[in-house]
Amino acid sequence: MTRKDLVSNLFKKKSFLCVGLDTDIHKIPRHLLQADDPVFEFNKAIIDATQHYCVSYKLNTAFYESMGIKGWQSMIKTINYIPSDQFIIADAKRGDIGNTSTMYAKTFFDKTSSGMSVDAVTVNPYMGADSVKPFLEFDSKWAIILAHTSNSGSNDFQLMQEKNESLFERVLRISKTWGSPENTMYVVGATHPETFKQVRNIVPEHFLLVPGIGAQGGSLHDVVVQGINKDIGLLINSSRQIIYASGETDFDKAAGEEAEKLQQEMQHFF
Amino acid sequence: MTRKDLVSNLFKKKSFLCVGLDTDIHKIPRHLLQADDPVFEFNKAIIDATQHYCVSYKLNTAFYESMGIKGWQSMIKTINYIPSDQFIIADAKRGDIGNTSTMYAKTFFDKTSSGMSVDAVTVNPYMGADSVKPFLEFDSKWAIILAHTSNSGSNDFQLMQEKNESLFERVLRISKTWGSPENTMYVVGATHPETFKQVRNIVPEHFLLVPGIGAQGGSLHDVVVQGINKDIGLLINSSRQIIYASGETDFDKAAGEEAEKLQQEMQHFF
Repeated sequence: MTRKDLVSNLFKKKSFLCVGLDTDIHKIPRHLLQADDPVFEFNKAIIDATQHYCVSYKLNTAFYESMGIKGWQSMIKTINYIPSDQFIIADAKRGDIGNTSTMYAKTFFDKTSSGMSVDAVTVNPYMGADSVKPFLEFDSKWAIILAHTSNSGSNDFQLMQEKNESLFERVLRISKTWGSPENTMYVVGATHPETFKQVRNIVPEHFLLVPGIGAQGGSLHDVVVQGINKDIGLLINSSRQIIYASGETDFDKAAGEEAEKLQQEMQHFF
Repeated sequence: MTRKDLVSNLFKKKSFLCVGLDTDIHKIPRHLLQADDPVFEFNKAIIDATQHYCVSYKLNTAFYESMGIKGWQSMIKTINYIPSDQFIIADAKRGDIGNTSTMYAKTFFDKTSSGMSVDAVTVNPYMGADSVKPFLEFDSKWAIILAHTSNSGSNDFQLMQEKNESLFERVLRISKTWGSPENTMYVVGATHPETFKQVRNIVPEHFLLVPGIGAQGGSLHDVVVQGINKDIGLLINSSRQIIYASGETDFDKAAGEEAEKLQQEMQHFF
């Protein structure tokens, strides 16, 4: 998806919500376990119920990989089911030496090779330029580079300082030269609202993928106030708060209501 | 595999060679393409020809993932084919927030969940403690944490300095407290032989997984002289130099000869 189409979808739906499909077979409603592919049945119902309130779906690949081949089948079926106006993210945190990152890019972007094609992959910058650039070589595809993540361990290394610049700021400053705001986004956790000002000083135009509201404790309002730009420039992810809103047969309805609630908070910023 | 068994295998075989199964269907001999699963057929022949000269196999997961479900099938079949005295590494460069890293650990360590179980996974430390620790909670399983990698981009961030300590040194110093030399190794590239002295100052006992000899230009001798410890403490990986030694029907024989050559260089260090 191009940036132009993405921004147009945001303004049309007055939403910048990304629904995280971190689907754990041990957490989905019992009655689905009789289905052939319970994970896909669950995702299908969640997508049907939430699609009008969101602009993006993010699949946390670990949850699918942990189920082996069956899990990859559920992931591919889910990706193929998501409506084409949604920005699909494989949250895979990949990154390796150049020729290997090319293989990861093929995994997620080249349907003839792997059977699936998404719009964006999350990429870990630790290994530097040649580990990220292969993801930027596909038309209308995106690398979403980890900057300051939402988890407790994010401060162990990402805040390391050299000459008043932290590691995550250095990642932003250097990696923004590898691509452009048309094919690069950054992960910035909602659990560090104070970070957004620093981030916007370095990358005023880029989209930010923001995990960490809801279960992880971040606030939607604080993030938007600090992080918004003229195109909105934010995709705010919510996973557990939406998909596990109810553990009963009404799980999809409950998920739709949670997504709608977030969309209604978001519409005031347009 | 326990450290005791690993070290015992090294001394028995007088080898610390790890063969990298970075199998690319576009690079394997033509005649294999008629097989049902050409990648597995190739790997099987390479394993048969090299197993007496090595102590470990490393599967670069990207190469399998890029082929989708078929690729995961080839990967699982290969892992199940490797003899049990070999230390099997999934070179997957994973790492995410705690509950997600637990899912990745299940992917690679819990056969009942994913259909495969290896001895070790390579892990990216950028996200800090909670992204690595879930890999250390499985008995006789290992996390191999990226320290100073072999690729050209490795200097972009890994050499960042705070108070005379580089990022990769900080990764070593902090992450060694999360586990022990019984369940943690580090990736240090052979392309930086000068790095091994710094690394050994911080982690004298840990095993190091060393990519980058051969195709990437590093020297086996330089690495060993700088990096060896009383248990050898090194697994030196060679991928392309061995598996693509010949592109003809004698590819397995040629691979065996390359592996033997490396083992013969290695035996002098015991």
